[in-house]
Amino acid sequence: MTPLLREIRHNPLLWLLVFVPAMFAAHKLKAEAHTLLFTLSVLAIVPLAALLSHATESVAAETGDAVGGLLNATLGNLTELVIALAALRAGQYTLVKSSIAGAIVTNTLFMLGASFLLGGLKHHTQEYNRVSARLQAGLLFLATVALLVPSAVSHADSTDTTAFLQKLSVGLSVLLIIAYGLGLVFSLKTHREIFGSTAHEEGEEAPWPMGLALATLAGVTVLVALVSEVFVESVQGAALQLGMTQAFVGFIVVALVGGAAEMASAFSGARKNRLDLSVGIALGSAAQIALFVAPVLVLLSYVMGPTPMSLQFWPGAVVMMLIATMTASLVTNSGRSAWFVGVLVLMVYLIFAMTLYLLPPRVQ
Amino acid sequence: MTPLLREIRHNPLLWLLVFVPAMFAAHKLKAEAHTLLFTLSVLAIVPLAALLSHATESVAAETGDAVGGLLNATLGNLTELVIALAALRAGQYTLVKSSIAGAIVTNTLFMLGASFLLGGLKHHTQEYNRVSARLQAGLLFLATVALLVPSAVSHADSTDTTAFLQKLSVGLSVLLIIAYGLGLVFSLKTHREIFGSTAHEEGEEAPWPMGLALATLAGVTVLVALVSEVFVESVQGAALQLGMTQAFVGFIVVALVGGAAEMASAFSGARKNRLDLSVGIALGSAAQIALFVAPVLVLLSYVMGPTPMSLQFWPGAVVMMLIATMTASLVTNSGRSAWFVGVLVLMVYLIFAMTLYLLPPRVQ
Amino acid sequence: MTPLLREIRHNPLLWLLVFVPAMFAAHKLKAEAHTLLFTLSVLAIVPLAALLSHATESVAAETGDAVGGLLNATLGNLTELVIALAALRAGQYTLVKSSIAGAIVTNTLFMLGASFLLGGLKHHTQEYNRVSARLQAGLLFLATVALLVPSAVSHADSTDTTAFLQKLSVGLSVLLIIAYGLGLVFSLKTHREIFGSTAHEEGEEAPWPMGLALATLAGVTVLVALVSEVFVESVQGAALQLGMTQAFVGFIVVALVGGAAEMASAFSGARKNRLDLSVGIALGSAAQIALFVAPVLVLLSYVMGPTPMSLQFWPGAVVMMLIATMTASLVTNSGRSAWFVGVLVLMVYLIFAMTLYLLPPRVQ
Repeated sequence: MTPLLREIRHNPLLWLLVFVPAMFAAHKLKAEAHTLLFTLSVLAIVPLAALLSHATESVAAETGDAVGGLLNATLGNLTELVIALAALRAGQYTLVKSSIAGAIVTNTLFMLGASFLLGGLKHHTQEYNRVSARLQAGLLFLATVALLVPSAVSHADSTDTTAFLQKLSVGLSVLLIIAYGLGLVFSLKTHREIFGSTAHEEGEEAPWPMGLALATLAGVTVLVALVSEVFVESVQGAALQLGMTQAFVGFIVVALVGGAAEMASAFSGARKNRLDLSVGIALGSAAQIALFVAPVLVLLSYVMGPTPMSLQFWPGAVVMMLIATMTASLVTNSGRSAWFVGVLVLMVYLIFAMTLYLLPPRVQ
Repeated sequence: MTPLLREIRHNPLLWLLVFVPAMFAAHKLKAEAHTLLFTLSVLAIVPLAALLSHATESVAAETGDAVGGLLNATLGNLTELVIALAALRAGQYTLVKSSIAGAIVTNTLFMLGASFLLGGLKHHTQEYNRVSARLQAGLLFLATVALLVPSAVSHADSTDTTAFLQKLSVGLSVLLIIAYGLGLVFSLKTHREIFGSTAHEEGEEAPWPMGLALATLAGVTVLVALVSEVFVESVQGAALQLGMTQAFVGFIVVALVGGAAEMASAFSGARKNRLDLSVGIALGSAAQIALFVAPVLVLLSYVMGPTPMSLQFWPGAVVMMLIATMTASLVTNSGRSAWFVGVLVLMVYLIFAMTLYLLPPRVQ
Repeated sequence: MTPLLREIRHNPLLWLLVFVPAMFAAHKLKAEAHTLLFTLSVLAIVPLAALLSHATESVAAETGDAVGGLLNATLGNLTELVIALAALRAGQYTLVKSSIAGAIVTNTLFMLGASFLLGGLKHHTQEYNRVSARLQAGLLFLATVALLVPSAVSHADSTDTTAFLQKLSVGLSVLLIIAYGLGLVFSLKTHREIFGSTAHEEGEEAPWPMGLALATLAGVTVLVALVSEVFVESVQGAALQLGMTQAFVGFIVVALVGGAAEMASAFSGARKNRLDLSVGIALGSAAQIALFVAPVLVLLSYVMGPTPMSLQFWPGAVVMMLIATMTASLVTNSGRSAWFVGVLVLMVYLIFAMTLYLLPPRVQ
C-alpha cells in the first residue's frame, strides 16, 4: 500500500480524493442539492481518473509490449466509458452522445492546442514524430465519416429511418472496432518501428507492483461508477441552476473532467519538449473514444440501455467533430509546432465552447 | 486473329466471354427474367471491358506519346461511358448519375484502397510518385466542387431553379472538359518530365497489331452497347427481386462491374511493387469519369436523352464524392503506403456500401 | 507634391483618376442614372485604391518594422473597409456581407490562381516560402470555422436565435481580432525569422516622404468614402439594369474593384518570379479581411449601423469561403507551383462566378 500513499502525498491532484467521501455524504444528506452534488462529483472524478490512469499504465508496464499496448489502448479512457455507462443505464442518450462528441473534440482541440501553446511558450519551435499523428488523424477521419453518414441521410423523416439507423449503427460500430483493432496490430506489431518509443516513455513515474495496480484498477472503477451515477443524476438540475445549456455541460464540462488526468500528462510532456508524448495522448485518446468507446456503447445499449442507442449525432456535433479532425490533420501535417499553432487550435475550441454556451436551449 | 485468341487462352477473365452469347440467348427466351438477365449481363460486361481496355492500350501504344495519352485518357473508361449512354437513352437519369458517382467513389476508394492493401501485404512499405497523385486529386477536387455547388444551391425550391440548374450544368460541364484537357496538356506535354514514365509501363502485355486493335475496339464497343441495354432494362427488376436498393446497385455493383478490367491491372501493379501504376489507374480513372465522362453525358443528353440531364446529384452522393476526394488527398499526401493505409481507405468504402445497402427505398 | 505627380505620370492605372471628378459631376447632374454612376464609381475607386495602397506602404516603410507591419496589416484593405462602411451606414447588410465574402474568395482564388498562372506561363516551376502561406491559410481556416458555426446552428428558427446570433457574433468577432493580433505578434515579432524578408520587398517603388504619404492617406480615404457612397447608392439599380444578380455584383464586381491595386502588385511579383510576394499579398489580404475587417464591421455596426449586424452569412457564401480556404490549403501545401496549379485555382473561382451569375434572384 505504500506506493499508493506515496503517490498521494506527492501528487496534489490526488488530494482531491477527499471529495469522494464528501460527495457520498452530501448525497445521503441532501439528494436534491443538484449544483452541490454536481460540483462535488466533478471534483471527485478528477483524482479517481488520475488513479485509474496510473493503475492502467502500471499493469501495462508489467505485461510487456503487446498486451500492455492493448491494455492502454482499451482501458485508457475507462473513466469516460464508466461515466457514459452510467448515463446509458439512465437512458440519457443525449448526455452519452454529447459527452462522447465532447471528449473527441476536447482531446483533439483543447488537449492538443494547450500542449502546443504550453510547449511553445517554453521552447521556440518543437518537433515530433508525425507518422504517429497521421495514423491517429486517419483513424479519427474514419470515425468522423462513420458518424457523418447516418446523420447526412437521416433528415429524410420516414418511419423506415429509425430501423435503418439502428441496423446501420450496429454495422458501423462493428466496422469501427475492427478498424481500431487493425490499427493496434499495425502500430504495436507489424510496423511498430516507425512509431518510435513513445509508448514506453509514458510511464514516467515508477510503476506500482502488479497486485496493487490490479486492486486499484478494480476498486477505483467501482468508485468512479458510483460517483458517475450521482453525477448523471445531478447534471441536468445543476445545468439549469447554473444557467448553462446541457450541450455545454456534456460537451465541455464532462469532457474536461473525464480527461483531466491525461491532460496533466500531456501538458507536462509538452513543457519537457516531449511533444511526441503530448500529441500521442491527445489524438490517441480521441481516436480511442471515437473508434472504441463510442461503438462499444452502441453495442452495450442493446443489453444495458432501456432502448438501443444509434450512432446518429446532433448535426452540430458532427460538424464540430469534422472540424476538429480537419484541424488535427492540417496542424500535425508538418511535424513541427510553435506557440501560435497552439493558439489557432485553442481558438477553434473556444469558438465551439462559446457557441455551445450561448446556444438557446430549444435549438440543441 | 491469333493474338486475340492467345490473349483469350491466357487470361482467365476472358473465359467469361461465354456469357455474352448466353445472355443474348436468355434475353430472347425469357425477357422478363430480370435477375437472370442482370447476372448474365454483369458477367458478360466484365470480359468485354477487359478486351476494350487492352485494345485501347494497343492503339495508344502504336500512336506515340501525345496521341496515345489522349486516347487512353478519353477511351479509358469507354465501358462506363457506353453503359451510361444506354441508361441515358432510356431516360434513367438516376441510374446514370448513381453509376457516375459510384464509379468515382469506387475507383477512388475501393481500387486505391485494395491496391494499397494487396501491395502492403506483400511489401513492408511502398513508395510512389506523389506529384501525379496530387494532380489527379486536384482534378477530382475541382470536379467535386463543380458537383457540390449546384446541389448546395438547388434546395431552394422555386420554378426558376430548374432552368438555372440546366444552364449552370452546361456551363460547368464545359468548364470541366476544358480543365481536363488542360490537365492533359500539362501532364503529357509541358511538364511530362515530373510525371515519370508511368504511362509507358502500363502496356505490360505485348500490344496487338493496329488493325486487330481497331477492329476489337469497334466490335466490342457495339457488343458492350448491346449488353448494356439488357443490363439497364433488367437492373431495376433485379434489384427489387434481390432485395437490394437501386442506390446500392448503381453505386456499387455497376461501378465494380465497369471497372473490373482496370482493377485487375491496378492490383497486379500493386503486388509487383509498382504502386505508381496502381495509383495512376485508380485516381486517373476517377478523374476521367468526373471531368470527362460525366460532363460529356450532360452535353449528350441534349441530343440523345428524352430531356436534358443536369449535373445536380443526390446530396448523399455529393457527400460521398467529397469524402472520397478528401480521403484520396489525405492518403496520397505522403507518397508512401503500408497495408493499414489500404484498410483505412477500404473502411471508408465499406461505410458507404453498408449505408447504401441498408438505405430504405424511400430515402434515396 | 512632385513624387505624387511623377507616380501618376508613370502609372497608367492612376490615369483613371480622371473618373473621380467625372463621377461627382455625373452624380450632380443625373442622380438616377444608376448604371452610369455605378460604372464611373467603379472606375474611380480603382486608382484611389492604388494611391491608398502606395501611401500606406510609404508610411509603413518610414516607421520601421513593427509599426510598419502593423500599419500594413490594418490599413492594407482600407478601400474594402471604407466601401463596406458606406454600405453599413446605408443598412445594406447583404451588400456588406457579400462584399466581405467576395473579397475573401476573390483574393484566395482569383488573385492567387492568376498569380500562379501568370508566373507559371513565364517560369517552368516556381518555389515560395510555404511557412508564411500556411500561417495565412491557418488564419483563414479559423475565420471560416467562426463563420460556419453560426450559420450551421441558425437554421433552427426560433425567436431566441436572433439574440443568440447577435451575442455569438460579438464574441466571435472579438476572438477573431485577438487571433489576428496574436498572428501579427507571431509573424512580426517572436518568429519573424521564419517568415523571410517578404514584408520588406513589397515597397518596390521609392517611398514617398512622410508628410505627403499621410496627407494622401487622409485625403484619398475621404475621396474613397465619398465615391463609395455613390457606388452603394447605385449598385442595386445598376445590377437590375445590367441583368446581373446582386450576389454576383457584391461577390465578384465589388471584390475585383476593391482589390485591383493589390492584384497589380501580386501579378507583377509572380511575373518577376517572386511568388512569395504574390502569395503573401493574396492570402494575407484574405486573412486580414476575414479576421480584421469583417469583425470590425460587426462591432462598428453597433455604433454606425441602423441595427446590429451579425456574422451569419448566406449558406452559399459560407460554402464558397470553406472551399476557397480548402483550395488554398491544398495548393500551398507543397510550396511549389506551375501554370496548371493556377488553372485549377482559377477554375474553382470560375465555378463560383458562373453560379452567382446564373443564380435566379429569389434563391439568393
